[in-house]
Amino acid sequence: MAEQTKIPYKIYLEENEMPTAWYNVRADMQKKPAPLLHPGTHEPMKAEELAAVFCEELVKQELDNDNRLIPIPDEIRDFYRMYRPSPLVRAYCLEEKLQTPAKIYYKFEGNNTSGSHKLNSAIAQAYYAKKQGLKGVTTETGAGQWGTALAMACSYFGLDCKVFMVKVSYEQKPFRREVMRTYGASVTPSPSMTTAVGRKILEEHPGTTGSLGCAISEAVEAAASEPGYRYVLGSVLNQVLLHQSVIGMETKAALDKYGIKADMIIGCAGGGSNLGGLISPFMGEKLRGEADYRIVAVEPMSCPSFTRGVYAYDFADTGRVCPLAKMYTLGCDFIPAPNHAGGLRYHGMSPILSELYDEGLMEAISIPQTRVFEAAEEFARVEGILPAPESAHAICAAIDEAKKCKETGEEKTIVFGLTGTGYFDMVAYEKFHDGKMEDYCPTDEELASFRTHLPKI
Amino acid sequence: MAEQTKIPYKIYLEENEMPTAWYNVRADMQKKPAPLLHPGTHEPMKAEELAAVFCEELVKQELDNDNRLIPIPDEIRDFYRMYRPSPLVRAYCLEEKLQTPAKIYYKFEGNNTSGSHKLNSAIAQAYYAKKQGLKGVTTETGAGQWGTALAMACSYFGLDCKVFMVKVSYEQKPFRREVMRTYGASVTPSPSMTTAVGRKILEEHPGTTGSLGCAISEAVEAAASEPGYRYVLGSVLNQVLLHQSVIGMETKAALDKYGIKADMIIGCAGGGSNLGGLISPFMGEKLRGEADYRIVAVEPMSCPSFTRGVYAYDFADTGRVCPLAKMYTLGCDFIPAPNHAGGLRYHGMSPILSELYDEGLMEAISIPQTRVFEAAEEFARVEGILPAPESAHAICAAIDEAKKCKETGEEKTIVFGLTGTGYFDMVAYEKFHDGKMEDYCPTDEELASFRTHLPKI
Repeated sequence: MAEQTKIPYKIYLEENEMPTAWYNVRADMQKKPAPLLHPGTHEPMKAEELAAVFCEELVKQELDNDNRLIPIPDEIRDFYRMYRPSPLVRAYCLEEKLQTPAKIYYKFEGNNTSGSHKLNSAIAQAYYAKKQGLKGVTTETGAGQWGTALAMACSYFGLDCKVFMVKVSYEQKPFRREVMRTYGASVTPSPSMTTAVGRKILEEHPGTTGSLGCAISEAVEAAASEPGYRYVLGSVLNQVLLHQSVIGMETKAALDKYGIKADMIIGCAGGGSNLGGLISPFMGEKLRGEADYRIVAVEPMSCPSFTRGVYAYDFADTGRVCPLAKMYTLGCDFIPAPNHAGGLRYHGMSPILSELYDEGLMEAISIPQTRVFEAAEEFARVEGILPAPESAHAICAAIDEAKKCKETGEEKTIVFGLTGTGYFDMVAYEKFHDGKMEDYCPTDEELASFRTHLPKI
Repeated sequence: MAEQTKIPYKIYLEENEMPTAWYNVRADMQKKPAPLLHPGTHEPMKAEELAAVFCEELVKQELDNDNRLIPIPDEIRDFYRMYRPSPLVRAYCLEEKLQTPAKIYYKFEGNNTSGSHKLNSAIAQAYYAKKQGLKGVTTETGAGQWGTALAMACSYFGLDCKVFMVKVSYEQKPFRREVMRTYGASVTPSPSMTTAVGRKILEEHPGTTGSLGCAISEAVEAAASEPGYRYVLGSVLNQVLLHQSVIGMETKAALDKYGIKADMIIGCAGGGSNLGGLISPFMGEKLRGEADYRIVAVEPMSCPSFTRGVYAYDFADTGRVCPLAKMYTLGCDFIPAPNHAGGLRYHGMSPILSELYDEGLMEAISIPQTRVFEAAEEFARVEGILPAPESAHAICAAIDEAKKCKETGEEKTIVFGLTGTGYFDMVAYEKFHDGKMEDYCPTDEELASFRTHLPKI
């Protein structure tokens, strides 16, 4: 099959073709993403205020709307070399299975032990923490991909790593927890009695199994209350999208190397770290009028921030201790239905992506989880890779587009992000195999009930 | 770091540099491995007898002691392209951590969904089964790597796949089972009531948690009793080592490409599939007198086939329905102590490797499992990859050799096989983290008690 074409199954860039700078898409945006606001005063957060929570260099990156290229330090590039450049795979087998004239490519970020793209930002954040002379960092993790990535990154730089893991995941995913311990991280189920906000939440909701918003509150408090610690976050923030732009830059370099022009770029979206990183350089071209691409965000029907949320200032966390961010949000108390197994469960969306979406520069769709798992299994059987449920949202949308091409006869080039592997998601796969997976679509009334607190800004 | 040298972190061959033929090391052996014998008559098994159990083309490969290169069919190479060539990684970070003058390389076979090198032979065996027009295949699996690999391969060619999984693993590793189901395989805990040999074993040992030897017996019976089915095996056999030679050929090509000469090649050894594949072309050079290498097999102290077994004809399975193989064996009823968590638990060893070892062409050492897990964790923290416990045997030996180089100042080049990832082995890692892992070293008396049945041949 591969003999018939010049494009290999996997396009690997050489190590010396790896990006030397991250791509800051904000530099290309005429209307910049809205600034973070102080939760008390509603004034834009100043650098020195942010520096109480985040590392100094990361604060700079968070606030930098102007520099298009930000050099990647050598120490981070050294680490990247252990698992990057990641392959851009031509999905020959999937194309054949679908009998589609479309050309399908996916950028595979799962070939590292954390099992996802999260490592790209984790190593950057750990590096800046180390450079600042900190002792350690705190964070939250839901499914565990971010926590694992951060544990690996901290271990590499000899930093302490404290992870607050959403209780339901802590209990259902003991193996994720154990991987983090292998890398020397301490893992606490959230809500916990170790923080004031955790104790308050447990008092009000004794049986709660936790949420990402709640774990964020605990991690922020833990960082603020111990000298030499800062808080780090794996998604949503501008700095995270910046680090993740390495995905998009490699993707673009690989496509350019073989003279391939993408028509459509598809990514799953929870907080937006993967999608934002994947599209950054492409969106840059689009914003500068140099090229056009259809860009599609795919989210779960049970957590539809883009497709059914509102664009407004909201809290980033349940405990409401974090700055306010203007984003597409379902409300900071929103938690997907318990039967939701497909990840991407954060209530809000990256302010950068929110602004781009609001301006009509990208589209968004939502998909029920049974269809997501059907796509995951179909993909696994022909392409060999067992995808994370999160990634399978993008797979599902790409398959749908490829089927449309079959009907119309169009030879479109579809690129999607395959963010990670599903080795730690077999409980969800088991539910699916046993026919016990249900779809959930919140009613308008339910969604409205989570928006009553939104601050008037 | 990488800037100082011309050798990248990861040496990836191009797809067109992938081997076009497997390397049959038996062609270079003056004394050939002993033939399989009929368990009743003790006569060498004839091709037509083997064809009742195995696919015809695989029988040919099993018996072929003469052809050095056996072409890899295009359909198999197409599949290989989905995850091969696999990277040969320079362990820069490990070298720095150890402060050793040694140069350490590892061939990483874990970057595919089955998580190990087993896929290299699974896809070959599935291909020949399909070509022969079979409906499906049966097999056994212990830790689950082989079963997963075979499930993936069968799914690709649309073959039915029946896996007998050692009961203790079936219960302790539900996620492995679920991955196999994702690829459409049926998975039965062994011993089971679905076969006569399973029922007999359950009657004699009602509480048994199963063994690999017992699962083999069941899988062989299941294949023999259903038309259109054949049995396939993931290790030990000559054909399996042949398919796995793709590991060694790629390793040699990558080393040659950069003008690197290995001094020492290290691999873990259970049934011998990985080690046999890795060393094949190097051993060929050694046998032809063209080059010399130290070749080291590493096995668990609790299952020491090479270091404390005997070289004799023995049954390949507990049910004693399979042909007899001449190999280093602990006796076909041997089962490692229950606290053994480190894989590599088969009682015998590849006849090819057994002959080479007996002739002094390679060495063998055994390592207690707590040291194996220490090495695994040390490696994971600096090199990023979470190794399978099996693979960590080779890591441990490589680290020991690198430390010797530090003492002597020798700049030796060490190459080892990193056969797979440990995502499904977190129960064992947890034991290790919690200080609950114990070492076990069978006494001479215990070992002798398993050898009383050995047929006098």
